[in-house]
Amino acid sequence: MTSLSDIETPAAVVDVARTQRNIARMQDRMNALGVRFRPHIKTTKCVAVADRQRTAGASGITVSTLREAEEFFAAGYDDILYAVCIAPHRLGRAQALRDQGCRLKILVDSLEAAQAVVEAQAQRDPFEVLIEVDTDGHRSGVGPEDGRLIEIGRILHSGGATLGGVLTHAGNSYELNDPEALARLAEQERALSVRAAERLRAAGLPCPVVSVGSTPTALSARTLDGVTEVRSGVYVFFDLFMTNVGVCTIDDIALSVLTTVVGHQVKKGWVIVDAGWMAMSRDRGTARQRRDYGYGIACDVNGKPLKQELVMIAANQEHGILAAASGRLASPEERFPIGTRLRILPNHACATGAQFSEYRAVTKNGIETWRRFNGW
Amino acid sequence: MTSLSDIETPAAVVDVARTQRNIARMQDRMNALGVRFRPHIKTTKCVAVADRQRTAGASGITVSTLREAEEFFAAGYDDILYAVCIAPHRLGRAQALRDQGCRLKILVDSLEAAQAVVEAQAQRDPFEVLIEVDTDGHRSGVGPEDGRLIEIGRILHSGGATLGGVLTHAGNSYELNDPEALARLAEQERALSVRAAERLRAAGLPCPVVSVGSTPTALSARTLDGVTEVRSGVYVFFDLFMTNVGVCTIDDIALSVLTTVVGHQVKKGWVIVDAGWMAMSRDRGTARQRRDYGYGIACDVNGKPLKQELVMIAANQEHGILAAASGRLASPEERFPIGTRLRILPNHACATGAQFSEYRAVTKNGIETWRRFNGW
Repeated sequence: MTSLSDIETPAAVVDVARTQRNIARMQDRMNALGVRFRPHIKTTKCVAVADRQRTAGASGITVSTLREAEEFFAAGYDDILYAVCIAPHRLGRAQALRDQGCRLKILVDSLEAAQAVVEAQAQRDPFEVLIEVDTDGHRSGVGPEDGRLIEIGRILHSGGATLGGVLTHAGNSYELNDPEALARLAEQERALSVRAAERLRAAGLPCPVVSVGSTPTALSARTLDGVTEVRSGVYVFFDLFMTNVGVCTIDDIALSVLTTVVGHQVKKGWVIVDAGWMAMSRDRGTARQRRDYGYGIACDVNGKPLKQELVMIAANQEHGILAAASGRLASPEERFPIGTRLRILPNHACATGAQFSEYRAVTKNGIETWRRFNGW
Repeated sequence: MTSLSDIETPAAVVDVARTQRNIARMQDRMNALGVRFRPHIKTTKCVAVADRQRTAGASGITVSTLREAEEFFAAGYDDILYAVCIAPHRLGRAQALRDQGCRLKILVDSLEAAQAVVEAQAQRDPFEVLIEVDTDGHRSGVGPEDGRLIEIGRILHSGGATLGGVLTHAGNSYELNDPEALARLAEQERALSVRAAERLRAAGLPCPVVSVGSTPTALSARTLDGVTEVRSGVYVFFDLFMTNVGVCTIDDIALSVLTTVVGHQVKKGWVIVDAGWMAMSRDRGTARQRRDYGYGIACDVNGKPLKQELVMIAANQEHGILAAASGRLASPEERFPIGTRLRILPNHACATGAQFSEYRAVTKNGIETWRRFNGW
C-alpha cells in the first residue's frame, strides 16, 4: 500500500478523519441554530471534499470565482452562490451557466452593477441577485442604513431580476482572538444583516435570504434569528491562523505539507526541507497574531507535532528552513537525517492548498488522490 | 484584435518589450564579464521566455524542481542544472532523465547525500554533481574552508561520479539596497566560491565549473575572475522588491496582473478589484524594505503608473483593496468606475507568476498566450 514515505514531496496531505470531524462539528452547529449551511468551496476547490460536506447536510455551495461555479456545476452542484460582486463583463458567462440549468446567484453592492445586471438580462431569463451588506467595515458592501440599499433593491426588482436577499461577511472576525469579542461580532453580523433585510421588506421588496458567515463568527454565534443561511470555508481544514483566533486546536488541522529533509546547517541548528513558499504559500498571517508560527510548524510523518517544536523560520521558493521554536536544535543531522519525512501545518489552508493541483487524502484504507483546481 | 480590455481577469500580463530589454541587459553584462549565463527558469516556468533567453545567448538553464527539468527537457533543453540539493528518493527520477539523454547536473552539500548519489549510480552511468558552497550564511551549502568540502568531493570522485564543480547563491543580496554593499557581496560570492574550487583542485579533485548567482549580485559584480557561469532568475521580469534592492526601476517591471474594478467604498476612498492574493500571491516582501508597496501598485490598462499612486493595501482571496499611497482618493467611483481595467505591478514576480497557468504576452502584434506550469 502506498504510504506517505513513498510519494513525491512536497505534497498537500489531507487527514480525512479530521476533515470529517470538522465537517460534522460545523454542520451539527448549524442544525442546532436552525439555519441552512452553504460551505464556501474556495478553500479546497475539491469536489471530493464538497461531496462530504453535502453528505453531512450542507445545502448548496458558495464560490469565489466563476471557474469554481463552472467546475462544480459540471460535477453535479446546481445551487451555487457566487459571493464576489459581479463585474459586468462576467454577466454573459454567468448567464451561460443559468442557461444550462445552474441556479447561480450573483452579488452586487452598487447602483452601477445593479443597472448592468438589469441591462444584461433584457430579453433573457432573470438573474437571481443578492445585495452585499457591509456589517463590519471589512471590505465590500453597502451599509445597512445606507439609502443605496433600497435603491439597489428597486433597480433590480423593477428591472425584472429576482431579488434573492442580502449577504454579508464579517471578515473582521479574523482580527479577533477572544470568545466574547467573536460572539459580539457574530451578533453584529446577524443583527445588521437582518436589519438590512427588514429595510428592504419594509420598502415592499422581497428578501427571502439572509446569508452571513465567516468561520470564526459561524463558530461563535449564539443565536441566528432572522438568518436563513451561513457560509464558511476554512473550517473544513482549519489552520494555524484559526488556532490563534481561538476557534480550533492544533489537533483539528487537517491539511499539512509533506516534505523531505534535504540538508542541514549543523552549527545553526537548521533543518533544510524541500517545502519552500511554493508549497506553503507566502502566507504569513500569523505574524500579526498572538503567536507567530513562521511559515508553519513541523509534525512527524504521521502528523504528530514534534516534542521539540520546529518552526519554518524562513522559506525560499523550494527550500524551507526549520529551527527550534526556542533555543537551538542540537544535532539536527542526527535527529532528522537527509531523507526524513515531515509534515508542516500551514498558516492558512486556503493559500497553501492553492499551491497544489491535488490533495493526498489519508484514509484508513490508504492514500487517495483528490483533484483540486485553480485559475479563473 | 484581442486587447487587454477583452480578456478575463485576473490575468498575468507580460510586457514582451520590457522582457526583451531585461534579457539583453543581463546577457550583455555577462558577455562583457566573460562568463556563461545559465538563467534560472523557476521565475517563469515558461518555455516561450526561456527560448528568448537562449536566443540572446544563454547557455543551458537552471531549475529548482525535477518537474521543471522534465518539462524543459521535453521542450528541447538538455543542459540542465538542478540547483536544489538532491533528496535521495529523487535520484531514480534524475537518473531517468539522464538515461534519456538529458545532461542533468545535480547538487549536494553533505556527506550523506554524496554517499547516496554514489550508491544510487552503482552499475549505472555516473551522475554529474556539483557541490553547494555557502558564501554568505544565507541557507544551504558547505563552507569554503570546511573540511567536509574535500570529503564530499572525494566521496563523489572516488565513487565514480563526475565532479562538476561548485555552486553558490548569495541570497543575502536580497536584504541589501546599496550599490557598494551589493558589489561587496558579489565579490564575496565570487572570491569564496573560487576559493572552494581552488581547495578542491589542490586536493587533486576536478572542479571545472564555478557557478554563482542571484539577480542583485549578477548585476553588481565588477569582476568575475575564476567564475565560469552565472545564474539569475527574476531579472527577466523584475518586480517591486528589486526596485527596492536598487537593481531596476519601475519601468523595467515586465509582469503585472490585469484586474477589473468590481466596487468601491467611497467614504474610505477605496477601489475594490478582482485581483486578491490568489492572483498577486501572499508575497509581502516589500514590507521589510525601504518602501512598502502593500500587495502592489496600480497602473492603467496600458501599464503606465497612475498619476495619483494607488497601492493594494489589503488582499483577500479574490478581492484587492486599492487606496491612495498618500491621503485619501477622492471620488473613487467616478475616477475608476466599475468595469475599469487596471494592471498591478507585483512585489515578487516568481510568486505572482506561480499563481497562474499562463501568461498573456503583449507584443506589438497583439496578445499571445504563453503556457507556464506549476507542481513538482
